Amino acid sequence: MISSRDNPTVKLAAKLMNSSSARREEGFFCAEGVRLCRDAAESGADIQQYLYTEQAAKKYPKDHALLLSVSKNSSAVSQSVLEKICDTKSPQGLFCIISISQPEMTVKPGCRYVAAEDIRDPSNLGTILRTAEALGIDGVILSDECCDIYSPKVVRGTMGAVFRLPFMIVPDLSDLVRELSERGIQSFASTPRNADDIRNTDLSNGGVMLIGNEGNGLQDKTINACTHRVMIPMKGRAESLNASAAAAILMYEFCLTKE
Amino acid sequence: MISSRDNPTVKLAAKLMNSSSARREEGFFCAEGVRLCRDAAESGADIQQYLYTEQAAKKYPKDHALLLSVSKNSSAVSQSVLEKICDTKSPQGLFCIISISQPEMTVKPGCRYVAAEDIRDPSNLGTILRTAEALGIDGVILSDECCDIYSPKVVRGTMGAVFRLPFMIVPDLSDLVRELSERGIQSFASTPRNADDIRNTDLSNGGVMLIGNEGNGLQDKTINACTHRVMIPMKGRAESLNASAAAAILMYEFCLTKE
Repeated sequence: MISSRDNPTVKLAAKLMNSSSARREEGFFCAEGVRLCRDAAESGADIQQYLYTEQAAKKYPKDHALLLSVSKNSSAVSQSVLEKICDTKSPQGLFCIISISQPEMTVKPGCRYVAAEDIRDPSNLGTILRTAEALGIDGVILSDECCDIYSPKVVRGTMGAVFRLPFMIVPDLSDLVRELSERGIQSFASTPRNADDIRNTDLSNGGVMLIGNEGNGLQDKTINACTHRVMIPMKGRAESLNASAAAAILMYEFCLTKE
Repeated sequence: MISSRDNPTVKLAAKLMNSSSARREEGFFCAEGVRLCRDAAESGADIQQYLYTEQAAKKYPKDHALLLSVSKNSSAVSQSVLEKICDTKSPQGLFCIISISQPEMTVKPGCRYVAAEDIRDPSNLGTILRTAEALGIDGVILSDECCDIYSPKVVRGTMGAVFRLPFMIVPDLSDLVRELSERGIQSFASTPRNADDIRNTDLSNGGVMLIGNEGNGLQDKTINACTHRVMIPMKGRAESLNASAAAAILMYEFCLTKE
């Protein structure tokens, strides 16, 4: 059992929890808690190291057995070590260090994608991924100015979608949508200015629905590169919807509303 | 200028920021930051005390003048006092103590309401209010087990909707919807079990859309008291949508989708 907070694995885990550059450099991210760790195992994530407290192993015997069987390495840790690593108040005692192994995602005609430009709030990004999976979006595209998809808050907010939903990170969404447009794939910029009511827009051929930054919306160059502009009609005085609420409505229309 | 952290107003403000029972006992809540304080002033909130740093007064002269003119009392405070009060990392220097004066809200036939049962997460509750205002919901009904609508996180998340949107807090939503049903007002329980696809439900007569707790959904007794059950059809593997994302989609269908 690892009981020293100075153990190299413990130090690595704590670093991965706290720093996106550490995650990038080391090529690992973390999942904490019984639900997320089980999701990681069931989704075939490459679990390099499984850490658990003896108490949690007894409390969640099935999940513990599954995690032992699929993880490359595993070790019991003391409660104090667990608390050093985790960012939640009462950690459940299961913890995974997982390889970042982004499978190549390609944008295909007829499928439905959501693209997030410069989303900074981890809760918003996590919710967008969770919603995308629930509604049946085929993949997620992120600008590289979005917050880190592997940050613990985002991972938790996705409710495991981060392990299952295809995604790609691109330096410039305007370049991407221009390329897609040449391949006949439509792109829908969500913006309140000079846009069509989403309810009157033909979304049946799929494509990419683009969601902008919390404060500023989509960049002008991205809006201009898209084939369509859509808006959610609003009645109230609130200047705009929260990014993840707007994304939920847009993806709902994109995936589910009847033609 | 107040520069002592032991000043009674400062102590009151700090207490109101940190404790829902203090807010209930004292009958005040707080708004912080230029946007929220301006919203409070413009919405006719009863501002008992306006606190500001000299720096903020210079930086936001119009908002400062407005707040001085509508507030019952006002005072400059030092940066250190401001930091004692505020829960954000870099407070903007404008702060209001506002009377809790909930106007009576009545549920009217033909109007559209959203009811939240036992929503515990302040971000979710704030987002639900913000979304409700943006989409044109006529009022919000909260069970008394929801988190405190006057907590700083909720107030911030509403983007000012808390000052403008009519709302009421009730001990038991099942009792309320039963009463409304007798008055011919429909109620729509959102639940994944034995429910109709929201896209096939006639929502044109208005009524109340009910959203349940983050982990457990609506209580059975509440579902049973409602006149209708509705669900968002889901394709993906995520067990459910986040409460505020589900609420956004349900309110969108309720308020905006064409019949």
